[in-house]
Amino acid sequence: MSTTLNDCRVLDANDALRPLRDHFVLPEGVIYLDGNSLGVLPKTAAARVAEVITKEWGQDLIRSWNSAGWFNLPQRLGDKIGLLIGAGPGEVVATDSTSINLYKVLSAAISIAAENAPDKKAIVSERSNFPTDLYIAESLCRDRGYRLLLVEAEGIMAALDGGAAVLMLTHVNYRTGAMHDMAALTAAAHAAGCLAVWDLAHSAGAVPVDLHAAKVDFAVGCGYKYLNGGPGAPAFVWVNPQHVDRFSQPLSGWWGHAAPFEFAPGYRPAAGIARYLCGTQPILSLAALECGLDVFGVAVALGGMPALRAKSLALTDLFIELVEERCAGHGLGLVTPREHAQRGSQVCLTRSEGAYAIVQALIARGVIGDFRAGDLSAGSGQTGGQDILRFGFTPLYIGFEDVWHAVEHLWQVLETAEWRKAKFNQKHAVT
Amino acid sequence: MSTTLNDCRVLDANDALRPLRDHFVLPEGVIYLDGNSLGVLPKTAAARVAEVITKEWGQDLIRSWNSAGWFNLPQRLGDKIGLLIGAGPGEVVATDSTSINLYKVLSAAISIAAENAPDKKAIVSERSNFPTDLYIAESLCRDRGYRLLLVEAEGIMAALDGGAAVLMLTHVNYRTGAMHDMAALTAAAHAAGCLAVWDLAHSAGAVPVDLHAAKVDFAVGCGYKYLNGGPGAPAFVWVNPQHVDRFSQPLSGWWGHAAPFEFAPGYRPAAGIARYLCGTQPILSLAALECGLDVFGVAVALGGMPALRAKSLALTDLFIELVEERCAGHGLGLVTPREHAQRGSQVCLTRSEGAYAIVQALIARGVIGDFRAGDLSAGSGQTGGQDILRFGFTPLYIGFEDVWHAVEHLWQVLETAEWRKAKFNQKHAVT
Repeated sequence: MSTTLNDCRVLDANDALRPLRDHFVLPEGVIYLDGNSLGVLPKTAAARVAEVITKEWGQDLIRSWNSAGWFNLPQRLGDKIGLLIGAGPGEVVATDSTSINLYKVLSAAISIAAENAPDKKAIVSERSNFPTDLYIAESLCRDRGYRLLLVEAEGIMAALDGGAAVLMLTHVNYRTGAMHDMAALTAAAHAAGCLAVWDLAHSAGAVPVDLHAAKVDFAVGCGYKYLNGGPGAPAFVWVNPQHVDRFSQPLSGWWGHAAPFEFAPGYRPAAGIARYLCGTQPILSLAALECGLDVFGVAVALGGMPALRAKSLALTDLFIELVEERCAGHGLGLVTPREHAQRGSQVCLTRSEGAYAIVQALIARGVIGDFRAGDLSAGSGQTGGQDILRFGFTPLYIGFEDVWHAVEHLWQVLETAEWRKAKFNQKHAVT
Repeated sequence: MSTTLNDCRVLDANDALRPLRDHFVLPEGVIYLDGNSLGVLPKTAAARVAEVITKEWGQDLIRSWNSAGWFNLPQRLGDKIGLLIGAGPGEVVATDSTSINLYKVLSAAISIAAENAPDKKAIVSERSNFPTDLYIAESLCRDRGYRLLLVEAEGIMAALDGGAAVLMLTHVNYRTGAMHDMAALTAAAHAAGCLAVWDLAHSAGAVPVDLHAAKVDFAVGCGYKYLNGGPGAPAFVWVNPQHVDRFSQPLSGWWGHAAPFEFAPGYRPAAGIARYLCGTQPILSLAALECGLDVFGVAVALGGMPALRAKSLALTDLFIELVEERCAGHGLGLVTPREHAQRGSQVCLTRSEGAYAIVQALIARGVIGDFRAGDLSAGSGQTGGQDILRFGFTPLYIGFEDVWHAVEHLWQVLETAEWRKAKFNQKHAVT
């Protein structure tokens, strides 16, 4: 039996998480399936940032570093992020960009590995990992005399035994939505004498993560995707407490100093995760990020991440079901795993022709997903080289009826060949 | 003849730059002499950031990366900063923090030096340089096998001949307000076969800088001081075009890639200064920074940086004159150079006792300056180990009458020993 529009409405009516949608601004006429690229605007953000600008900056000026708690924002926000990823209080800071945080933790991981197993000189990662992660690893490998060994997902276990010092993976793949088994791969890494560094860019706030349970060594993640922190919101970094005081990272700026106001000429890293701070942080952007994080605080009473995960899977299941029924015969393939345990919070479809135009035609109809080119050496094995139509389903604000309409629009675009007339806009994409 | 309050009012009335003050929010009852730590709020910033939040983020969402020009913000703002520091269009990007940008340029400088003069293995800097700059240099020296050689200002020239590869200096000293001769020291560095890296944190927007005329190799600077970009506003980075394509910096994130949307697994640095970008930038904070920069655009018609510099010197001259007259006998010393060519846009006073309490008492009266401890190995030679009372004079919005009242308050605090009863707040300080 097909799921009908009415069924979807019933699902929405019975959705205990539905009230969370009211915490966000959702533009009229838009079905936003790109929250895995840039999350939507929390309703509190405009007023909160206005307060920071007009009162904290405008009136209180320099005094706000203390009176408004600006100094403590990386930690205060870090604690809120920690609740979503199985990190303890005081273990996470919100700061800098994901790429820069990855540089910090990879540097520290290499330093630890160099002591633990000086003969191991490789970082293993997935060929289809998000490129910026590979670029950062490439740079550190060059500077530290390491090799960057890129393998397909199925080759990771085998690669660990080949002299790997660090396994660096993104938990949920940005192009396919495939999710790794973090605990199993971390255990395999440890068994091979290797440290595990995880990028949670497409996980934090989207799928349950338990860094301590998985015994992860280092993790970084993004503030502007599922955390709804606003464009280019600061990222975050977590280090396992067993490692955190062992090495300081190379971006040793004043904010990571043990006594930042001593203005001493020599660097002494702060205890704990504070040593992963570097320079002064963009307060306006941190303030907006906190508004996104606070919605997760509201979600706790409604079941928190487990409930969000259940809804996310129900949304992506429904999308797959409806696409396969309604759009059958239109040449769409499914690249995202059907198995729940291997799926993030997005669904990626392939098509040998017109994927970019189809995404554009959908955007013109107000259904915003995005496109990822398939003709890449990166991960081409997973998609047969085909282009990808990517749809993110943020359980905080996407409903079942949204899914139904999105598929209906997709079907219409395909059925009427509307995509052949689609206006090509310049590509946009932030992972 | 003493300068009277009335004289100051006449100076303000005749000040061609006076209209610029109306572009800023100046809190009632406050004389803000801390713009060298956090600049004041431009009047346009609240509305501009609100527009970015409600329209660009809230309504247009991911499409704003193109439609609102988010991708181009680092370059667009960079060009506006370039006008203030003698850099050409396309040579500057606004991004990350000063510390992180310093890490990038020092890394590149070391790479160039390693090719030009592989036997030279030292970075020379000033012992009283801003500590975070020294921390970053310390980190890179450790990782690259270099020495960090710290000398007093008068010892810089001599130190260049001792195997120095890179001279790293801050143009205007954060504690003393002393300004280096950028052109002369850069020339000396070059004569010694050394590259010159300058931190413009207390210079950009405060004093005229001409990076090309001085033949500087690399420069970084701060967005939230004299540029009035807001708390923790993104910083900037400039690289001499003769070096920019020679090396890529190690923070090789996707935004610095030659083709960021190809999502290719290998890093290829973008041409030009774009390769000094790394990860996604905080758009809200960049938007606020642009409002600060645009006031300098207005200032151009009023004489631009030369006129601002003339006013800055008149303000600091007046402050020195009035302090020495009115507060004579109260144990204040002057650490900022009297020579115009050696002075930035701040005046620093010393006192053997009570400096912190005096600053607090002034703040309680609405005169906001700040305190810097003197009992440091860093730069203690310059101040005889005495504590510092630091007063910044931003010519965009400080007037001559402000100077008069500030000195009057200082005199009252000293004369009545009010400072002995001053409430001690927690220290705040961001350089």
